[in-house]
Amino acid sequence: MTLRKQLKLGAMLHGVGSSTSAWRHPDAIADASVNFELYKRWTQKAEAGKFDLVFVADGLYITKESIPHFLNRFEPITILSALAGVSKRIGLVGTLSTSYSEPFTVARQFGSLDTISGGRAGWNIVTSPLEGSALNYGKKQHPDHDLRYRIADEFIEVVRGLWDSWEDDAFVRDKATGVFFDPAKMHTLNHQGEFFSVKGPLNIARSRQGHPVIFQAGTSEVGRDYAGKHADAIFTGQETVEEAVGYYRDVKRRAASFGRNPDHVVILPGISPIIGSTEEEAERKYQEIASLVSAEDALRYLGRYFEHHDFSQYELDAPFPELGDLGKNSFQGTTDRIKQKAKALGLTLRQTALQVATPRSSFIGTPEQVADNIQLWFERGGADGFMIGSGVPNGLEQFIDQVVPILQERGLFRTEYESDTLRGNLGLPVPKNRYSKEAELV
Amino acid sequence: MTLRKQLKLGAMLHGVGSSTSAWRHPDAIADASVNFELYKRWTQKAEAGKFDLVFVADGLYITKESIPHFLNRFEPITILSALAGVSKRIGLVGTLSTSYSEPFTVARQFGSLDTISGGRAGWNIVTSPLEGSALNYGKKQHPDHDLRYRIADEFIEVVRGLWDSWEDDAFVRDKATGVFFDPAKMHTLNHQGEFFSVKGPLNIARSRQGHPVIFQAGTSEVGRDYAGKHADAIFTGQETVEEAVGYYRDVKRRAASFGRNPDHVVILPGISPIIGSTEEEAERKYQEIASLVSAEDALRYLGRYFEHHDFSQYELDAPFPELGDLGKNSFQGTTDRIKQKAKALGLTLRQTALQVATPRSSFIGTPEQVADNIQLWFERGGADGFMIGSGVPNGLEQFIDQVVPILQERGLFRTEYESDTLRGNLGLPVPKNRYSKEAELV
Ligand SMILES: Cc1cc2nc3c(=O)[nH]c(=O)nc-3n(C[C@H](O)[C@H](O)[C@H](O)COP(=O)(O)O)c2cc1C
Ligand SMILES: Cc1cc2nc3c(=O)[nH]c(=O)nc-3n(C[C@H](O)[C@H](O)[C@H](O)COP(=O)(O)O)c2cc1C
Repeated sequence: MTLRKQLKLGAMLHGVGSSTSAWRHPDAIADASVNFELYKRWTQKAEAGKFDLVFVADGLYITKESIPHFLNRFEPITILSALAGVSKRIGLVGTLSTSYSEPFTVARQFGSLDTISGGRAGWNIVTSPLEGSALNYGKKQHPDHDLRYRIADEFIEVVRGLWDSWEDDAFVRDKATGVFFDPAKMHTLNHQGEFFSVKGPLNIARSRQGHPVIFQAGTSEVGRDYAGKHADAIFTGQETVEEAVGYYRDVKRRAASFGRNPDHVVILPGISPIIGSTEEEAERKYQEIASLVSAEDALRYLGRYFEHHDFSQYELDAPFPELGDLGKNSFQGTTDRIKQKAKALGLTLRQTALQVATPRSSFIGTPEQVADNIQLWFERGGADGFMIGSGVPNGLEQFIDQVVPILQERGLFRTEYESDTLRGNLGLPVPKNRYSKEAELV
Repeated sequence: MTLRKQLKLGAMLHGVGSSTSAWRHPDAIADASVNFELYKRWTQKAEAGKFDLVFVADGLYITKESIPHFLNRFEPITILSALAGVSKRIGLVGTLSTSYSEPFTVARQFGSLDTISGGRAGWNIVTSPLEGSALNYGKKQHPDHDLRYRIADEFIEVVRGLWDSWEDDAFVRDKATGVFFDPAKMHTLNHQGEFFSVKGPLNIARSRQGHPVIFQAGTSEVGRDYAGKHADAIFTGQETVEEAVGYYRDVKRRAASFGRNPDHVVILPGISPIIGSTEEEAERKYQEIASLVSAEDALRYLGRYFEHHDFSQYELDAPFPELGDLGKNSFQGTTDRIKQKAKALGLTLRQTALQVATPRSSFIGTPEQVADNIQLWFERGGADGFMIGSGVPNGLEQFIDQVVPILQERGLFRTEYESDTLRGNLGLPVPKNRYSKEAELV
């Protein structure tokens, strides 16, 4: 037993990955994005490795230019529920958009998943970066970036209110007296707001963890504020330890400014380790994956972040073009960073596109090197844990088999689950029911 | 092996049941509606009994007057997906409302469940009878009965169109050439209708059964037309074999009038058998369950069908009151029938309420008697199969253990699945993709 602070680990179940071309690798499973047996194997493997959670991302609009994984993939609520049936302890986290959903349905589906899984559900709130999403939902216009966050703000309040519809001891189920529930412990929300009006009560009670865990991945200013205000856990994508430390401090500070305990906001950068038995072997593997990406693929991939902008119109080896505000209304945080970096390092369009399409992460090397880097980020205060990608062929499996034991040996990662709820394992408190008498005493 | 026409069987997974009080029975599992282990046991038991499908109903509005099962129950998409992970052959059918959902989301969630389960999903289309549903979805008003069916009409067209977004051989996944999909086999719906405008394509391909099976439970005139036009399978609730035969003929005739093959519309009345080793034991069991229902409970139960009407204002032992059009806009078919029956038989309010709350079905008796009656309905042309309720304590288990073997012995029910898709077992054809060349030749 160790008293050392422990890191948290999640697995991104992302089918053939976020890349345009990794599915072509000889070891890749080309139908991974719609292969339930594989998702089940990954989840059971991650659970055997004592991971805190698996995560399923989402998006609401595709075109012929979309990357392979986005074209044909599982919808998060269904795949996570299916995985609930074949796992016992691991958390089940999925993305659902507040811009194109109804709070009553979202509260129910995550509430139901939370009850089915015995308190292991998590909801990654996104506001939908892709403008085309509006076209699949009969909307004239995709709401602007900051408006989307205002909608998301009210949305989460409604959902939390619905989750509190029933106090934890409301269901008496006394066969002798015939009392099924205590009407005083059933609460009707009666929400009337700017964007939503929802009466309630919800037709499902809270699970053992109270509310599903709220995840978020804000990178823009408003996005970070939202995360600081509402999120229990935050996904992020940082490239260097310095960046990670900067982001980490910033978001924890924001959480504190909203009167929250910064320890109750768990920050988890996403990484896609590439592991070899030697540094050279790992590097070779990276090159092998990178070489599958053509310049054309990379440009298309880049374009997706910039509202499906057509980058083939520019000179490939000229400096990265001036784009004005393009991208601001969709992936604001990400596109700002791409522009800044291209400018700062004087990159060409080709260099930028290839780097975005196949990021050269700091997690390429032997199992020890990867573990060292994880420890570095963790101890320098850049992360409370990590989200491990599944897009590198066999990458997740190798991480679990080869890196996890090193982290466990160093006392940095659990060898057994502390809890059987996701909140318990992430070290997060159970939210008090807003209506319960106890809540008033706090 | 027999060439005799075979009947179809489904299990309604309905937690503590549709009754106000069955949960009080000594053998009842009082938290059944939110007990995943029980739902899993029921499903695996039904699969061992070679049932075609399990079914999960749904509703979108509750009040303190709602029956126990409705207050706190699993949401269909999540529970069916969880059950997909723990079953192999049985169909997974759930209710989802076309009045308070988005076609893109519904197409995705059922499409994803269909792929996860290997072609075992079914969608029971309802238009939401309860007026209060509007209040949970920020709508000023619940659409009128017939308008709801017009919306449902366009809704199913959109969903079917989205399901055809990808031809079955669209995903090539050729690692050597780098062709992931054939762009000519990806189709954009571009639907612009009266109620919906949805661009597409859907981001999930068809499963092995083409489309999830469409279920419906229309009882009103418009409802029956809808069923005849769109449904692959129909749930219904008939009390006598004569009624069942009348309904059966009527709906098959409507199907034919829409140019469909009536054999491709499977009609499944819901029944809740009460089984005893003798006729007397079965009758005793019925009385035991009926005696748990107080007159007050029964009035509340009855009120639910009539837009939560308060029946306690009437004299209990006077004739059933005159209600005018009350009920027309919600459970039209059911309330019409209740009114007609009360008038025809000269029932009092108490008699009507008790009969609605604990229907005395024709399926009370020994296993042989229940099997006889099933055979009678089937061979008289009142049913293609049956939906077996789970609300009688141990009723589903006893049916599977004691009645199914008799039906199998008589050659009326399969001893092994014919197919591994729900369509296959129900004897329904795989819908052609509207865009495929083959479809044009038909
Ligand atoms: C680990 C991780 C997971 C993400 N998952 C999703 C997702 O599932 N769906 C989505 O639309 N965006 C997802 N995002 C993208 C965020 O929406 C993105 O970072 C966006 O730029 C949010 O930043 P904003 O503050 O500019 O809105 C994810 C980001 C990260 C770092
Ligand atoms: C076996 C069966 C299952 C049903 N399941 C649901 C359901 O899950 N949700 C619902 O709102 N209504 C359900 N219904 C009720 C139908 O919506 C109801 O019969 C209604 O009256 C439809 O008839 P209509 O034609 O008047 O609209 C079900 C009915 C039957 C017979």
